[in-house]
Amino acid sequence: MAASVTPPRGMRDFLPAEKARREHALGVIRGVYAAHGFDEIETPVMEDSSRLHAGLGGDNEKLAFAVMKRALSADDLARAAASGDALSLADLGLRYDLTVPLARFYATHRAALPPVFRSIQIAPVWRAERPQKGRYRQFVQCDIDIIGEAGSLAELELLTATVATLDALGLSGCTVRLNDRRILAGILGSWGVPDELRERALITIDKLDKIGTGGVAAELAELGIVTGDADVAAELEALTNADWHLADGVVPPPSWLDRDAYADLLALRAALPDAAIEFDPTLVRGMGYYTGTIFEIAHPDYGYSLGGGGRYDGMIGRFLGQEVPACGFSIGFERIVDLLAVRDEERPRAVVLVYDADVPAGRLLALKQELVASGARVRLERRVKNLRALLDRVTADGFDAFAQVGAETTDAASLAFRELGE
Amino acid sequence: MAASVTPPRGMRDFLPAEKARREHALGVIRGVYAAHGFDEIETPVMEDSSRLHAGLGGDNEKLAFAVMKRALSADDLARAAASGDALSLADLGLRYDLTVPLARFYATHRAALPPVFRSIQIAPVWRAERPQKGRYRQFVQCDIDIIGEAGSLAELELLTATVATLDALGLSGCTVRLNDRRILAGILGSWGVPDELRERALITIDKLDKIGTGGVAAELAELGIVTGDADVAAELEALTNADWHLADGVVPPPSWLDRDAYADLLALRAALPDAAIEFDPTLVRGMGYYTGTIFEIAHPDYGYSLGGGGRYDGMIGRFLGQEVPACGFSIGFERIVDLLAVRDEERPRAVVLVYDADVPAGRLLALKQELVASGARVRLERRVKNLRALLDRVTADGFDAFAQVGAETTDAASLAFRELGE
Repeated sequence: MAASVTPPRGMRDFLPAEKARREHALGVIRGVYAAHGFDEIETPVMEDSSRLHAGLGGDNEKLAFAVMKRALSADDLARAAASGDALSLADLGLRYDLTVPLARFYATHRAALPPVFRSIQIAPVWRAERPQKGRYRQFVQCDIDIIGEAGSLAELELLTATVATLDALGLSGCTVRLNDRRILAGILGSWGVPDELRERALITIDKLDKIGTGGVAAELAELGIVTGDADVAAELEALTNADWHLADGVVPPPSWLDRDAYADLLALRAALPDAAIEFDPTLVRGMGYYTGTIFEIAHPDYGYSLGGGGRYDGMIGRFLGQEVPACGFSIGFERIVDLLAVRDEERPRAVVLVYDADVPAGRLLALKQELVASGARVRLERRVKNLRALLDRVTADGFDAFAQVGAETTDAASLAFRELGE
Repeated sequence: MAASVTPPRGMRDFLPAEKARREHALGVIRGVYAAHGFDEIETPVMEDSSRLHAGLGGDNEKLAFAVMKRALSADDLARAAASGDALSLADLGLRYDLTVPLARFYATHRAALPPVFRSIQIAPVWRAERPQKGRYRQFVQCDIDIIGEAGSLAELELLTATVATLDALGLSGCTVRLNDRRILAGILGSWGVPDELRERALITIDKLDKIGTGGVAAELAELGIVTGDADVAAELEALTNADWHLADGVVPPPSWLDRDAYADLLALRAALPDAAIEFDPTLVRGMGYYTGTIFEIAHPDYGYSLGGGGRYDGMIGRFLGQEVPACGFSIGFERIVDLLAVRDEERPRAVVLVYDADVPAGRLLALKQELVASGARVRLERRVKNLRALLDRVTADGFDAFAQVGAETTDAASLAFRELGE
């Protein structure tokens, strides 16, 4: 039984210090989002297989962990062997995102929800990806979504709540990068990309950061997406280098610019006078389901986005059989949590009582109770020969002070506390 | 697509009010346990199948949801069909309790943990049980465990932390019911039950509440566990009716009483002078792994236990290949959360702004921000014809006051708030 003992591949255990940091961050996120009028919900970690594989999850559908039916019969197994269809043995799966469960939740409970429903979902998701640095098979997503609001108030509430949350986490100074899928469609139209190839073209443009303008132009040509004489590399270069101000009226207005979409972005800009906002007409944000505004939040100190989202009016209503406007934002929790430290002033004083073996358990307990009642966090540690090593360890565990308890100690007032880690 | 949309069988969605109540309770539990020196950890929801089916989970092993291997080949499926062994297609499973993961976690991280490790685990578990009222396929467990402490200080810290947590949740006045597996062994010995049948005998005695002393005696006879002339029904009757005081010395000491175990119980009693403690020599607590003290917490207002635990020295070390003393307690979270209400004074003031369609989004947002900054929770609601219905709805959603925002509203100071629900 003493074989290798590790968590499953690509999944993590959290030891006390890391777990405390995560819970602290989640508490801050919950609190700010709630203040901004969002309501937290929860769904089971599993959904019916058929729902997870209904085409709403994009490439993530392939990464779903499948949960086997209980009580599979010999016939079931034989049929799966004959058809080669392993998934026929699964009836449930672990969610790979929080958007498919939200669509299902909304369809189930719509009658009990307000007409404009602002949801918070903070929960783990699972993807059977090839594990690599910074990418895990179980990770937490923090999503807020506004369902039922077709106007830009949805985008505004999402953006302000998110920026406020990042501020509260100590990540102030963030920049919001904005675009609109309609503007991307205009650009693709100006290159002569046919409608049915647009989604594929966006997947290529989304690689701009990695393969550059030349690489994107080459891939678009190679895939036969751009076939005319548009100089895509030069145009992308111009688009990424232009200094877009999102001031009223772009002069001269580029011929490809979707005027309605641009007007919406100007209105967002005007309604958020204090925010650092950039317009980036090449911003794509992976998911195929976006229909309008898309946004991403960046911080000058970090070379990756801290989260993003957008409008996806076609999707939430899919399980309802009708269209429902929706807009959402997801914080990249696993990235953000590594940037945070729990500030000392946010936790109670933590003290250690080092006790001799001859102190009666009842007295130890009474001392501990008295200190807990005074608002402290208290750990009991039996005295060991190497007291220094013990004190180093509890200091590393985040304790602030210690006192020794001997047979002569009778009450908490007689404890002599000494500070740790000084 | 507009077919039935429900969560998977036996699993629940939580709407905002219920989710808020659950998070509130979890926050209280986390806070009190942390103050008492326990440290929260987290493990992945999945563990290797082999570990979940290593014999530590008792009957729960049969209830584990199995997660299929990714990329199953035709050969894999054919082999499973030939052998009839569906589980050969699974490499992972969802945990059915938090004790098996804790044993694995401890084996993985022992070197990084203090010699006496006090853990908190608050997390969902999954069991493919037949769904029925009050029994779910996904539910939250709240466990605390003390690993590495062989003495009764472990029991004392667990019991005081738990009673303090229940007090903080508003469930004061609880009674602790105590017993020890060694005492049960003594009783079974006095009836001539051979060692190898004792575990089976305990399963029957555990049904005392349901089938009574006569039913237990009949089942023990029927199963061939008690074959001599012990009048089991009469003895059980005497055991359950006796007025056990846990005072020093039981006079006359019953011949079956394990003196060491009883002395330990007396010491617990003496160290917890303020607690309501009852000795119940017929208390069993299901799990097969208990080796010493067992305890259960009951509340006079409710006919079921609010949680329980005990000492299980043989188990935590199983994955390490050595024995490690351990003692744990689990709160029955799903039962307890139904008994609680979030007290008003524990949440921020929540206000609704009812706005006319012609108010610019930017101004609405500025008003909202100002109120959020003042510490309120704020929801925006567009005016509808039936204002009364809207106000009833937001009152039900837990909001305290509302104000109307028209084109003439310029700042938060000019908002006229009216209380809701009065």
